This record gives sequence, structure tokens and C-alpha cells, in this order.
Amino acid sequence: MEIRQYVSDKAKKAKSASRVLANISTEIKNNALFKMAAGLEKEADKLIVENKKDLKAAEQKGLSKAMIDRLTLNPDRVKGMADGLREVAALPDPVGEVLRMWRRPNGMEVGRMRVPIGLIGIIYESRPNVTADSAALCLKSGNAVLLRGGSEAVHTNTAIVVVLSRAGAEAGIPEGAVSFIDNPDRSCVTEMLKLNQFIDLIIPRGGEGLIRMVSENSTIPVIKHDKGICHVYVDSKADFKMAEDICFNAKVQRPGTCNAMETMLVHKDVAKTFLPAIIDRMKKASVEIRGDEKTRAIVPDIKAATEKDWDTEYNDLILNVRIVESIEDAMQHIAAHGSQHSEAIVTDDYCNARRFQREVDASAVFVNASTRLNDGFEFGLGAEIGISTTRIHARGPMGLEELTSTKFIVFGSGQIRK
Amino acid sequence: MEIRQYVSDKAKKAKSASRVLANISTEIKNNALFKMAAGLEKEADKLIVENKKDLKAAEQKGLSKAMIDRLTLNPDRVKGMADGLREVAALPDPVGEVLRMWRRPNGMEVGRMRVPIGLIGIIYESRPNVTADSAALCLKSGNAVLLRGGSEAVHTNTAIVVVLSRAGAEAGIPEGAVSFIDNPDRSCVTEMLKLNQFIDLIIPRGGEGLIRMVSENSTIPVIKHDKGICHVYVDSKADFKMAEDICFNAKVQRPGTCNAMETMLVHKDVAKTFLPAIIDRMKKASVEIRGDEKTRAIVPDIKAATEKDWDTEYNDLILNVRIVESIEDAMQHIAAHGSQHSEAIVTDDYCNARRFQREVDASAVFVNASTRLNDGFEFGLGAEIGISTTRIHARGPMGLEELTSTKFIVFGSGQIRK
Repeated sequence: MEIRQYVSDKAKKAKSASRVLANISTEIKNNALFKMAAGLEKEADKLIVENKKDLKAAEQKGLSKAMIDRLTLNPDRVKGMADGLREVAALPDPVGEVLRMWRRPNGMEVGRMRVPIGLIGIIYESRPNVTADSAALCLKSGNAVLLRGGSEAVHTNTAIVVVLSRAGAEAGIPEGAVSFIDNPDRSCVTEMLKLNQFIDLIIPRGGEGLIRMVSENSTIPVIKHDKGICHVYVDSKADFKMAEDICFNAKVQRPGTCNAMETMLVHKDVAKTFLPAIIDRMKKASVEIRGDEKTRAIVPDIKAATEKDWDTEYNDLILNVRIVESIEDAMQHIAAHGSQHSEAIVTDDYCNARRFQREVDASAVFVNASTRLNDGFEFGLGAEIGISTTRIHARGPMGLEELTSTKFIVFGSGQIRK
Repeated sequence: MEIRQYVSDKAKKAKSASRVLANISTEIKNNALFKMAAGLEKEADKLIVENKKDLKAAEQKGLSKAMIDRLTLNPDRVKGMADGLREVAALPDPVGEVLRMWRRPNGMEVGRMRVPIGLIGIIYESRPNVTADSAALCLKSGNAVLLRGGSEAVHTNTAIVVVLSRAGAEAGIPEGAVSFIDNPDRSCVTEMLKLNQFIDLIIPRGGEGLIRMVSENSTIPVIKHDKGICHVYVDSKADFKMAEDICFNAKVQRPGTCNAMETMLVHKDVAKTFLPAIIDRMKKASVEIRGDEKTRAIVPDIKAATEKDWDTEYNDLILNVRIVESIEDAMQHIAAHGSQHSEAIVTDDYCNARRFQREVDASAVFVNASTRLNDGFEFGLGAEIGISTTRIHARGPMGLEELTSTKFIVFGSGQIRK
């Protein structure tokens, strides 16, 4: 009951801040972001002291080296957070944009104006930079934010939010606009997910378990940032050099990301020529290859792919390879095993390029480009809060515009309903 | 367990139809809509026979006259449904529209293309025309639909869906694209709400109880069509004739709708001149008036409004009247008691018009026009599936475009992530 009250009070206060924030000028919001950036840099030492507490606890709990690395703050990373805030300040304010406006036969003008969503709840895991990033994106788009970070980073996150709130208050941002649930009790999350009278949208950022738990328990709309099982299909008319560079980039450049390739599909007519070189290059980059039977007939020295492998997000230097009969066969494989995240074709054939682009269902479909480019910065949206795998509201990279709602605005001269 | 299997089988089949439907031409979809319209007209007698079964049961259950009227089919209403399908055929197909396309510094073009959402679940109450309307809008926007109508209309709805499915199949629409849960067991709904592996979006259309139940139990994203507590604020610089016509229209033209006015707010400087005439006109149209103290000091012969009245959606010929000190006072009342649905100001003052338009939070904000105009047809969106009160994805009238998602499309020439 005490936790319920604690979370509900935080959310209520943040919601009330969101109403004020919705009508605050871009100038004040940008000024707050600059002050926040300066505050983080000025308080870097204090943040690092707080971070040490989390790191000590993490070591005692025996967290993995990778997790401890993600959790660690140092002066460079604090500077990175501050620069991130300044980058958001430099982006155009989406609030107030009129998307379209038209005149109706009765003479009234009808338009759609971007407005903030309201209060956004963000539930995330270890990386402390998510705290500053999310706060900045929500603030710039006129939304209040209620943050809930992982318990392993609670000292660091609390310290970051104290700095952000103080700087925000100095700039005229209403109290509660950037709120943080600093009670590490897990039931805070389930309480938060029931507060649909205050929270307008929940964005979970983290592993599959977190996302499933949130989707199953939330009475608030959820925009998921889920896994990616992504493919590159090398068509019979592909430019081999281009295909090799794209496939190599999609697998190796950063294998732990959701838009990295997990399976390479190759048309049977080019398999014998294309596969030996690319597989050799992958192997030299320490990629483990798992092939279907036909692939193993061409390149024998690789593991056999199992049925389960086609449905696995490795997030690692492992690649499935399959030879397909046709573009239809490739698209069927993608429909059956893909996660509608990022899909690419490499081809010089106009009809196949057009067909793949139209028929494949994914948040981003690429012709002759790497799946790794499915990203807010690469697409020119500016900073992103993640890549949405939900089909409604925002699909793919979610930037400032995707953190807004719209309202219809109507200018009349006495029109009534007939 | 049997019900779970039944609902899950329906949804699975419909989902699989949605994948085919997503890539079907506009020509086939329009042809299907015309065949469906002809089918309904041809089978009108059979539909009316089935409807009689529902009407008989409704009378035995003692349903209200208004509910029985809503449930009734007659030749005119069947023709109305058929005409509705033809109107949807005449609307532009939203699928495949490229909203924007731009070139990135690395030379690749990035665009956003409208695509269907997938499988949409619609849960609704009595009116059988919702069956045909929803099926048409979903089909035209390339979505499969799983319909769940009220048990009181099960014979009528089943018969309508049989006609629609047969006509669809003749036109080449995949089986299952228009599906209907004809088992009246209530647990079908709760089962449906858990099928997030098949259903992409749930739209509940009905009373508050239905909407709350759906929001609380669904693991699938929900777009609500909730209640409207709408206001018209008559500013000190309003044109009285215009203000009177707008207020009268907003209350009287169709009081049972969600965009009808429940409370009229009047600036203190004009109350004495404005109120007597409009209250007299309202009373002559059988509107019951409930006023605050100041209103009753001017027009004594009316009821006193209670605190609860300001928060009540009457859906009836009852109107609250309150005198406010200022535009701020009016906007505060709206923020405290409104449901963010449809809000209007009547004024000749530029600054007040602009301020109300910017600061009031609602799905549609009107200057000098009736709240009753918050409607898909009136706004020029074509047919609507309802008025969304959810803040994400679609807010306000929801037409064909709001029944689509987007995907990013990228045309490259070998671009990789640096």
C-alpha cells in the first residue's frame, strides 16, 4: 500500500507538470537542456562517486563484465551525456507543427497540430545514459517523464535526476516534469503499469523478459522495442562486391544490436560464386557460420543450422546461411522466421527490388543498403528513443515527432452541424 | 479450453489472411466492396428474417425501446449499409502512399510508406451496421478484421458476415479476412484480448463498461472510443447570434452523441445580455438547465448544478451553465472537468481565439464552430470507424489513414553503417 501511494504520488505530480510543460516555449525548454548539460559536467565527480556505489554492489552481486562496463560512468561518458542533451536542444521543436490544413465546403479550416502526448513512463535497464537521453527527448517534445531504471544503477540514476531536476527548475521547467522512481522495490513497476489515469504511454527498453512483463501487465498503451531477427537476401542479379560489403557490415559492424543480420539468404544461381569469399571473410572476422545442407555442399567446413537457429536472435558473431530457390522463397523465409524489424535485398533487378520493397513486412525495408542503417540518426530523424517494433503510433526509429500526439484544430465563422 | 481453441483458430486464420490482403490491389478490394454491397441488397429478406430472431429474443429479455430500435433491420437500413460499402469503395486507398521521402548525406533515399496494420479486432455492441462498416473500412485499408458483436445481435451479425465473406471470396479476398466470432459466450472476448501473437490492434466501440473491461484485460494495443464531456465557452467578445446558434446546435442537434455539449461556460461581462435568450431557446427545445449560483441570479427559474454535474456526460437534453471570470477560468474548468474530446470557444478576439486553440487539450478544438462537427465526414476524412480518445496513434475521428501503420523504405547503392 505504501509503495502504491509512493508511485501514484510521483505519477500524479508528473502528470500535473505535463499540463504546464505542454505550453512552455521552445526557448525555455532549450535553455533547460543547456543548463542540464552544464550541470552534469559540473557535477561529474559527484556522479562518479555515486556510480562507484552501484559498481561495488554489481561486483558483489557478480554481474558480468559486459554489464559492469555498461553501468560504468567516467568523465568521458558524463561528457557524452551532456553532449547528447545539447544535440537534442539543437533539434527542431515538434510541438505546434501544423501537419496539414484544409478548407471544407462549409468554409471552416481543419488542421492537425502536433501536441505532446502527456506523461510518458520509461522502464529501462542498466545504462545510465538512458536516464539523461530519455529525459531530454521527452522534455523537448513537451512531455513529462516518469523514469524507472534498473535497481543495479539506482545510485547513479538518482544522482543524474537530481542534477537534471535542479537545472530544469532554474530554467523554469515545472517540478515533477522529470521524475524518477528511486525505490528499487520491483512492485513499483507493476504499480506504475496500472496508473492509466496519469500515464499516457509506457516505453520499455530492455530485454525480452522486461518487455513481455510490461506488455502483459500494463493497462497503459505500450510501445515495445523488441528483438530483431534480420535478413539480407542476395539476389541472383546482385553486384557481388556490394553484396559482400553489405552482408559483412550487417553482421560484423556491431553484432549485439537489434538491426544486425542473423541470417543471410542467397539465390541458388549465385551461391557457388558468392558464398566461398563472403564466408571466408566472415570467418576471418571470427564469425561462426551455420549453414543449410546446400550451403554445406559448397562450403563444407561449417556447422549445420538447426530449425531453431532460423528463429534465434544471436546478438553475437554467429550467422545462419541458407540458399533459396527464388525471391519468393526468400520472402517466405523472412515472413516465417523474421521479426519484422530490418530486412534487406541486394539486387540490380528493378522488378525484384520493387517487389521486395513492397511485399516484405518490416519496420524498415532496404534495397542495396545495410540493415544496420535502421536508426534515427542514420535516417535523419535526430536522436531516437529506440526502434519501435509495435505496429501502431510509431514503427521503426522513434524520434521527437513520434513522442507527440496530434489534435484537430478548426477555425470557423459560425459553422454548425446540419 | 474449447472456447480458447475456437477463438484462437479464428484469429490465426484471420492473421494469415491479413498477410495476403496486405498486398492485394485496390481494384480487387473495391470490386469486393461492390459485390458485398450487392450481396446485402440481394439477401435483404434473409437478413431481415435473421434479425427477427434477435428482435424476438430482445423483446423477451425486455430490452429498452431505444436498444430495440438500434437493433432493428429493415429494407432501408440494409440499403444504408450497402451504400456505406460503396462510399468506402469510392475513397482513396491509403496503402502504399509514401508520406515523405528525403535524401541522406550518404546518398540513400529514405521514405515512409503506409502499410496495413495487420489484423484488427473490433468489439462492439448492438447496431448491426457496425459489422458492415467496420469490415469495409478494414478491408479497404488492407487489414483483416476479427469482429465480435453483441450477443443480442448474433443472428443478424452472423448473417451479414456470411454475405460479406461469400462476396469477398468471389472477388478474390482471402478466406478469413472478414471473420466473426459467432459464439455468444462472454469468455470469447477475454480470450480474444490475450491473442497478441495474432491480433495487432483492438478497437472497442460501446459503453464505458465495455471500454474499461477491454483496456484492463487486453495484452494487445487498444484504441478507445470513450465518452465526451464537451464545453462551449462564450467569450466576452462573442457575436451573440453566432454564439447562440453554436451552443444550440452543440446541445440540441443530437444530444446522445459524444461530441454534444454538456456544459456552457459564459464570460461574466456578457452573461446578463446573453443568457436569458439562449436559456429560453434551450428550454423551448425541452432542454433541462442546471446553473451555478451566478447563472441562477440572472435566470432564477432553473435547477442548481451540483459538483457531480460538471463531470457528467448526460447524452441527453440536459445542460450545465456556468459563468466564468475570464478565459483562464474557462480553460481551468475545461481542464478540470472535460474529457479532452471536443472543446469550442466563440469569440471575435484574436488573442483569445489563438490562446484557446493552442492551450486547450482535446482531440478537436474549435474556434467559432460547433463541437458537433468533430466527425470524420465533417472533417473530410471520409467514413470513420469512430472518434478515438486515446492519445497515441490516432486521436479524434479515425478514418482509413488511421487504420494504417507505416514502414521505412530505403533505396541505396551499397550504403553501410560507418
